[in-house]
Amino acid sequence: MTLNEAAAFLNARNDFLILTHKRPDGDTVGSGAALCRLLRGLGKEAWLHPNEDLSPKYAFLSQGLLAPASFYPQTVAAVDVATEELLPASAQPYAGAIDLCIDHHGSNTGFARQTVVDPSRSAVGELIWELGEELHFSPTLAFCQGIYTAIATDTGCFRYPNTTPRCHTIAAACMENGLDCGPINKVFFETKTRARFQVEQYLFSHLQFSAGGKLAAALFPQEAIEEMGATADDLDNLASLPRQIEGVSCSITLTQLGAELFKASVRSDEQVDASALCAQFGGGGHARAAGCTLRGEGADCLQRLAAAAQEALGYV
Amino acid sequence: MTLNEAAAFLNARNDFLILTHKRPDGDTVGSGAALCRLLRGLGKEAWLHPNEDLSPKYAFLSQGLLAPASFYPQTVAAVDVATEELLPASAQPYAGAIDLCIDHHGSNTGFARQTVVDPSRSAVGELIWELGEELHFSPTLAFCQGIYTAIATDTGCFRYPNTTPRCHTIAAACMENGLDCGPINKVFFETKTRARFQVEQYLFSHLQFSAGGKLAAALFPQEAIEEMGATADDLDNLASLPRQIEGVSCSITLTQLGAELFKASVRSDEQVDASALCAQFGGGGHARAAGCTLRGEGADCLQRLAAAAQEALGYV
Repeated sequence: MTLNEAAAFLNARNDFLILTHKRPDGDTVGSGAALCRLLRGLGKEAWLHPNEDLSPKYAFLSQGLLAPASFYPQTVAAVDVATEELLPASAQPYAGAIDLCIDHHGSNTGFARQTVVDPSRSAVGELIWELGEELHFSPTLAFCQGIYTAIATDTGCFRYPNTTPRCHTIAAACMENGLDCGPINKVFFETKTRARFQVEQYLFSHLQFSAGGKLAAALFPQEAIEEMGATADDLDNLASLPRQIEGVSCSITLTQLGAELFKASVRSDEQVDASALCAQFGGGGHARAAGCTLRGEGADCLQRLAAAAQEALGYV
Repeated sequence: MTLNEAAAFLNARNDFLILTHKRPDGDTVGSGAALCRLLRGLGKEAWLHPNEDLSPKYAFLSQGLLAPASFYPQTVAAVDVATEELLPASAQPYAGAIDLCIDHHGSNTGFARQTVVDPSRSAVGELIWELGEELHFSPTLAFCQGIYTAIATDTGCFRYPNTTPRCHTIAAACMENGLDCGPINKVFFETKTRARFQVEQYLFSHLQFSAGGKLAAALFPQEAIEEMGATADDLDNLASLPRQIEGVSCSITLTQLGAELFKASVRSDEQVDASALCAQFGGGGHARAAGCTLRGEGADCLQRLAAAAQEALGYV
């Protein structure tokens, strides 16, 4: 479905419930909230499905938007959700009954009845902004808040290589509409919890370098995570940090989720296709940022991943 | 002088030498290089004065632009230079003979014969971009490189509160002109030398928290600095890092310069006046960022500073 068709689809429907993905980030929450504001601006009833994983720092976006238990949707939409497995547990009942998915993951499985997917977009927020344009919506401050959060968080505040001119022009437009980006930037890019601080400390002191310094990998056992009192949020996007060290092309973090169960995050530059690497372990994602789940003993899982990465880097 | 008048002034002159400030940053080098490219694009002869303080990471900007010793300028311009004292030693001979200064510091002393100063601009790069527009210059890739570097570095990659919509629209225009911002962002915002990485590690593992977690302080003895092979660049702006930790209002780093000689850097939020704090030790600066020099034994110097900061925070 094109954006234009999606706009017509939204215009023709009512009573929307908007789903975000589990372990929600700025793009899914920001885009979901912005879509909700947009639909309300068109005179529709629209709510965000309360995502049980939502971290408090995103609460400002969903204020007044969380669906009451009594709400029965006519139209169910999902934003930034590549597969139904990525829905939070509380939204699983909607699996198989999602009318529209708006996404930017090339790996989107097409699980929804209608899908708008554009992998050239840095953030789903861009697509929601353009839906607003299609629907002649005059951007409100709350709408801009959602859009800016979506784009800024998915581009590392315009720092990552996925940043496009469009990201900048939309950010400029949000500011022209009166948005003060300062508080948003402070929350997302300049604030660390004490636990996050400890987690980063742990990461850097446990990094294992290999492949001539091109690969940096670290393991977070459950015990260490609990000792630091780290939440999922505190563990978020850790894999991107070692990539900042001069010479590092690929970084891997392995976080223990349960007994012999680990979640891997891979970040890479053009020397490694992170998505292809994770696909070897049944995962996926983007070329520069991908993930997968591994079963087994921690050090062994890390070793398997590292060996695959070393091979990708030409160190066999 | 208005930008329009500056454009006419530049058009009427030739044989330009462009000066940057000492301890050069991305704005002075990026703006200077962009102005040089612009003037050459207009068919003028223009060179950058070789700045002896230039760090290698800026070299890509000034490639092919450094004035040969034989060059005798008709017109001397300075960019991002607020006072003549801020010229590097090698440019001091031009003091009193500077024809045009383009700056964004409200504190500009008006030392040049003609001055364009606009404190509402995040970076001088914005002014150079607009000079290009005034002069109907078609932005080249090298020009865009300078402009983007100037704006991105002075706004912390669009993260600081000084970021304006104009910063984003100029960045978008640079990208539309073919600029790949990825390598620039990587150098300035995503690359840490191994020594810098070690310095940050050292900082975070030696932080002493007090005043209910509001004060974070660390000492860098000369021995540790030498062991890490850290340059002045690697030690730059360290004090701002602990301020990102939730709850920290004031942070202090104390770096050993010599026997019983220490340089203190203080960063604070609105709870502490860093400038007043440093004034107690004969130093000064801004309300949120200041410094001073202390003599004595390291631990003792840190203790004296910390006690003063604790008092400022209401913990006596």
